[in-house]
Amino acid sequence: MRTEGAGAGGHDLRHHGDAEVRDDGSALVDLAVNVRADTPPAWLREVIAGSLDSLAAYPDGRAARAAVAARHGLPVERVLLTAGAAEAFVLLARALKVRRPVVVHPQFTEPEAALRDAGHTVDRVLLREEDGFRLDPSLVPEDADLVVIGNPTNPTSVLHPAAAVAGLARPGRVLVVDEAFMDAVPGEREALAGRTDVPGLVVLRSLTKTWGLAGLRIGYVLAPPEVIAELERAQPLWPVSTPALAAARACVSPRGLAEAEAAARRGVAERAHLVAALSAFAGHGLRVVEPPEGPFVLIRVPGATAIRHRLRTLGYAVRRGDTFPGLDPDHLRLAVRAPATVTAFTEALRTALPAPPR
Amino acid sequence: MRTEGAGAGGHDLRHHGDAEVRDDGSALVDLAVNVRADTPPAWLREVIAGSLDSLAAYPDGRAARAAVAARHGLPVERVLLTAGAAEAFVLLARALKVRRPVVVHPQFTEPEAALRDAGHTVDRVLLREEDGFRLDPSLVPEDADLVVIGNPTNPTSVLHPAAAVAGLARPGRVLVVDEAFMDAVPGEREALAGRTDVPGLVVLRSLTKTWGLAGLRIGYVLAPPEVIAELERAQPLWPVSTPALAAARACVSPRGLAEAEAAARRGVAERAHLVAALSAFAGHGLRVVEPPEGPFVLIRVPGATAIRHRLRTLGYAVRRGDTFPGLDPDHLRLAVRAPATVTAFTEALRTALPAPPR
Repeated sequence: MRTEGAGAGGHDLRHHGDAEVRDDGSALVDLAVNVRADTPPAWLREVIAGSLDSLAAYPDGRAARAAVAARHGLPVERVLLTAGAAEAFVLLARALKVRRPVVVHPQFTEPEAALRDAGHTVDRVLLREEDGFRLDPSLVPEDADLVVIGNPTNPTSVLHPAAAVAGLARPGRVLVVDEAFMDAVPGEREALAGRTDVPGLVVLRSLTKTWGLAGLRIGYVLAPPEVIAELERAQPLWPVSTPALAAARACVSPRGLAEAEAAARRGVAERAHLVAALSAFAGHGLRVVEPPEGPFVLIRVPGATAIRHRLRTLGYAVRRGDTFPGLDPDHLRLAVRAPATVTAFTEALRTALPAPPR
Repeated sequence: MRTEGAGAGGHDLRHHGDAEVRDDGSALVDLAVNVRADTPPAWLREVIAGSLDSLAAYPDGRAARAAVAARHGLPVERVLLTAGAAEAFVLLARALKVRRPVVVHPQFTEPEAALRDAGHTVDRVLLREEDGFRLDPSLVPEDADLVVIGNPTNPTSVLHPAAAVAGLARPGRVLVVDEAFMDAVPGEREALAGRTDVPGLVVLRSLTKTWGLAGLRIGYVLAPPEVIAELERAQPLWPVSTPALAAARACVSPRGLAEAEAAARRGVAERAHLVAALSAFAGHGLRVVEPPEGPFVLIRVPGATAIRHRLRTLGYAVRRGDTFPGLDPDHLRLAVRAPATVTAFTEALRTALPAPPR
């Protein structure tokens, strides 16, 4: 078994949204997993299917690496393709020589789990709910030589200013910014991907969420050449499959980038619809962490655990919040979905909520 | 860059057959890569294409793991699916606490490269050409706590007796047997996969070679539950893609196993044809390492480097031998191909060979 329980401060860091959907025989409407529901699009599926013609050959990642580099205006020496961001976290944890890693929470738990599994002692910075989970740089210890932060952050949906995140960089420190959801932000306006003026900056990107390719395992790391070289040395040979390489090239093509931007703008409207629908439950004590900027929203509602269980019986999966350090059992994360789904979900939520306090 | 050069005793351990085929713009007939040429079959491609319908979900490896376990009559706790054997080598190198790893050469160089990249000092046992590269257990140091051997062995095509390989097991030693090519041996007659009576036995299997799925990255490890647990802890989350999981289930199905066995029997006949064709060049000093039992043959021929280059100009790629510890520049590895390909290759070889000595 992987890291969990007491060693991780009581949080099951290896609990992920996919478990909330799959461990039940019934078909649930999925608001638990942060992957767009209508993906991958047909044209992308065709690209991937076309790559099956060359499965007998070992994967050759050079063209995809060059395409990703060009998309961010970087030389290929600053790019490493990985089998999803999950592989990148393991490579970072195992390959980098660090003494004091710090993870800024609440955030995706896999980076801390990977660090612990690699034998590191991990310190946590807990951003405060009363601050809207905004970044407070003064909380990060000066001697931290590895700092991991997500932007926009899963599960809080907070988008930190690029300048604030870049301000965490220090000589002798590796600053890992997980931008797995940045392509869901129109214009990627607080992105650090492509920047070469921030010392020790490592940016992680995923093609999973916007493109619905979680099953394909593809992501990439942008970092200084010497960091990329260290990670590459720790990586297995042929780490990314041929279909995943084909998908990566397609997703960073002009067509792919334009579609991602359009999807991001559509997502903003859909999120606004979700937030408006949720505002009807303020009388039940339901609050949204504002302003959400990712393709999901974090809510707090009294009795969330019971509500989550009732929602399951009504056919809806939502993500529990209490496995994230810094959150508690009254938090739930909801993926942004199309208006019709949200409307139906709202009805279910009305049934699932206890009567409002008088 | 990865391990190579002086640190590896002058051998480029990261040179693989795929580089011999792809780094030339022209289309070469490939006798360099040990992957069956007519694969994957149409029915398997359809299974893989069908899996593209569920790419948006994170991979769920449980059914494939259970299928692999059942195929070898083992509990699932003894099975780990990996992104190809290459990932398994990295996991073994990074996760196991060993002090004195020993690799039996000549063999696939990736295990040693992965061990070196993980910081280990690796001792080599060199099997002798004058013994036909047969296993001499007395060469393995008693205090080795990790021994890696291939069976049948790439690139020598030697099939060691199962009892001889199992005899390398010791209390306190992990014995890694790379059986990536065992399914090309009819009846898998010297396999250790599925055995639970050999202490510390770790068997690696690949679905790449027989099924032409090198591009998909799928293989598996069979080992005692405590070793599997250690490897799993070092493995990224969701390590194997959804298409690869679908392929794994299909390959260990009754249909898949029956086809693999038929392919193995066909391969024996094709190999006999290749060896017979090569016997015509005995006058040029060409010798086959006998008896070959894998889907490739190792030959020695004076002037092999020049012959290899001439073969390239004639449209044929063969695998150089000198990057394998224990071999030298006069060795070449030839993949077994269908008779028509072999006949055409033989004509090219006749042209490429220097005049026989008088």
